[in-house]
Amino acid sequence: MMLGGIEAGGTKFVCVVGTGPDDIRAELRVPTTSPRETLAAALQFFHAQQAVHGPLDALGIGSFGPVDLHPASERFGYITSTPKPGWANTDLAGVFRRGLGVPVAFDTDVNAAALGEWRYGAARGLDTFLYLTVGTGIGGGALVDGRVLHGLVHPEMGHVRVARDHRVDPFAGACPFHGDCLEGLASGTAMAARWGRPAHELPTAHPAWTLEAHYLAQALQGFVCTLSPQRIVMGGGVMDQPQLLPRVRHELQTLLHGYIQAPELLREIDAYVVPPTLGRRAGALGALVLAERVVV
Amino acid sequence: MMLGGIEAGGTKFVCVVGTGPDDIRAELRVPTTSPRETLAAALQFFHAQQAVHGPLDALGIGSFGPVDLHPASERFGYITSTPKPGWANTDLAGVFRRGLGVPVAFDTDVNAAALGEWRYGAARGLDTFLYLTVGTGIGGGALVDGRVLHGLVHPEMGHVRVARDHRVDPFAGACPFHGDCLEGLASGTAMAARWGRPAHELPTAHPAWTLEAHYLAQALQGFVCTLSPQRIVMGGGVMDQPQLLPRVRHELQTLLHGYIQAPELLREIDAYVVPPTLGRRAGALGALVLAERVVV
Repeated sequence: MMLGGIEAGGTKFVCVVGTGPDDIRAELRVPTTSPRETLAAALQFFHAQQAVHGPLDALGIGSFGPVDLHPASERFGYITSTPKPGWANTDLAGVFRRGLGVPVAFDTDVNAAALGEWRYGAARGLDTFLYLTVGTGIGGGALVDGRVLHGLVHPEMGHVRVARDHRVDPFAGACPFHGDCLEGLASGTAMAARWGRPAHELPTAHPAWTLEAHYLAQALQGFVCTLSPQRIVMGGGVMDQPQLLPRVRHELQTLLHGYIQAPELLREIDAYVVPPTLGRRAGALGALVLAERVVV
Repeated sequence: MMLGGIEAGGTKFVCVVGTGPDDIRAELRVPTTSPRETLAAALQFFHAQQAVHGPLDALGIGSFGPVDLHPASERFGYITSTPKPGWANTDLAGVFRRGLGVPVAFDTDVNAAALGEWRYGAARGLDTFLYLTVGTGIGGGALVDGRVLHGLVHPEMGHVRVARDHRVDPFAGACPFHGDCLEGLASGTAMAARWGRPAHELPTAHPAWTLEAHYLAQALQGFVCTLSPQRIVMGGGVMDQPQLLPRVRHELQTLLHGYIQAPELLREIDAYVVPPTLGRRAGALGALVLAERVVV
């Protein structure tokens, strides 16, 4: 069996050929510029790999969104209403299905990353958990009872609202759709706009991190009350700051205030809100799990 | 087959004997006072029914909470940390298992109501949906892919946080655990405390309803972004005000701002946020569905 996987992110595409973390035959990272440029590079990569390894049995794609996941829809496999210039109404699955002549599995980038962490990483053996990425944007994917959560469309966890104090944080918010939703206040984009420099350049003691932990913990508190995940895995570039995760845990406990009496939320919080173990490959490895499921 | 069902609510217990909505043989409604008093009345009711109809095949209980739903836990079937006086650490399932000598299925009151509306009511045929009750307290239950959502513990949707403007609403909040969480700001208890009279006595034009719709819609917006339900069923005493539901729908659309391009959230919103069709019996009928699943 030979599979292809794509993590189609808003910043870059990660394309892999192989069967799992110990068997990656080739990898391509290409910036997400225009659909024409980025998709051509990805197609070329897979064509070249097929010339070496033979035809792929299936391709899995985890894409930034919103995307259309309804198998019966005319626009299944499309990126739909994204604010990312040039990418709205892109038939992502179709381009690869036609271009490579293989079955294509399609889901959101964060659902793919959740699948990857569930199969190979920080969420192994769990039934119900949440993967949240905090980077350029903020997105969440979930498994419930061992199945990827879809529902009406798919979760859009970055766009939940959080309470804010305008006196402490007068920043208007950076989300083009909602202004001051979670993504609008706490994404890497929002941090850069509010503080005038990228998150990774802000010193550890900068008040930015207190505010960031506060917003993220509020969102987690809502997710815990709504989904009751057995664990929360937090990835993405903004989470690379080592001081952030402990603060988020502490603030989450403050907000929950002992109401939900599960040891995981009380003395075991360090094992409850955790970093991913697959690092930057979670999405692409999850895309391989997606692919595996559609091999004919 | 003869089943028993209990909706164990914070205000009253609804006990039924039968097999479904068209076959309810007997019904008891008893106020939730002390465990000793209320449980004795319920046990007496089921004993009397067994004398007439013969032994029950199983009993289902949907209880107010928080409750312990881990089958492996020593406190499975208990009400755990509830603020309701006298009811913390009550072995609800055990009392009926021992008292009636029948298999007992146990879940939250709102999960039971969700199951009832899914089998017989407003959510028939759906895979993923949400049931929210707005009464003395606020609680939510969900089915995901046709299965009751549990996770780490169970959802506590009434305790999500909502954004508020202290200048518009200086009320401190009525939740003993979180102050101004959703339940603390928008439950019947909160409304009565803020406005000095019960919700049902507030006139249609009272500003209370604008505020109430605003808080409820905020919570729904978060649930939509997190769970992506195919429909939201809203029950409970506070929702009996006919002007409230249309306002909640309108405000939800304003908050979503067209980001999630599903017809259900755009032109079909009236069929997306709906009242329950089983009325006050949803929980007890759902408890019968729970019971059915443990018949040996």
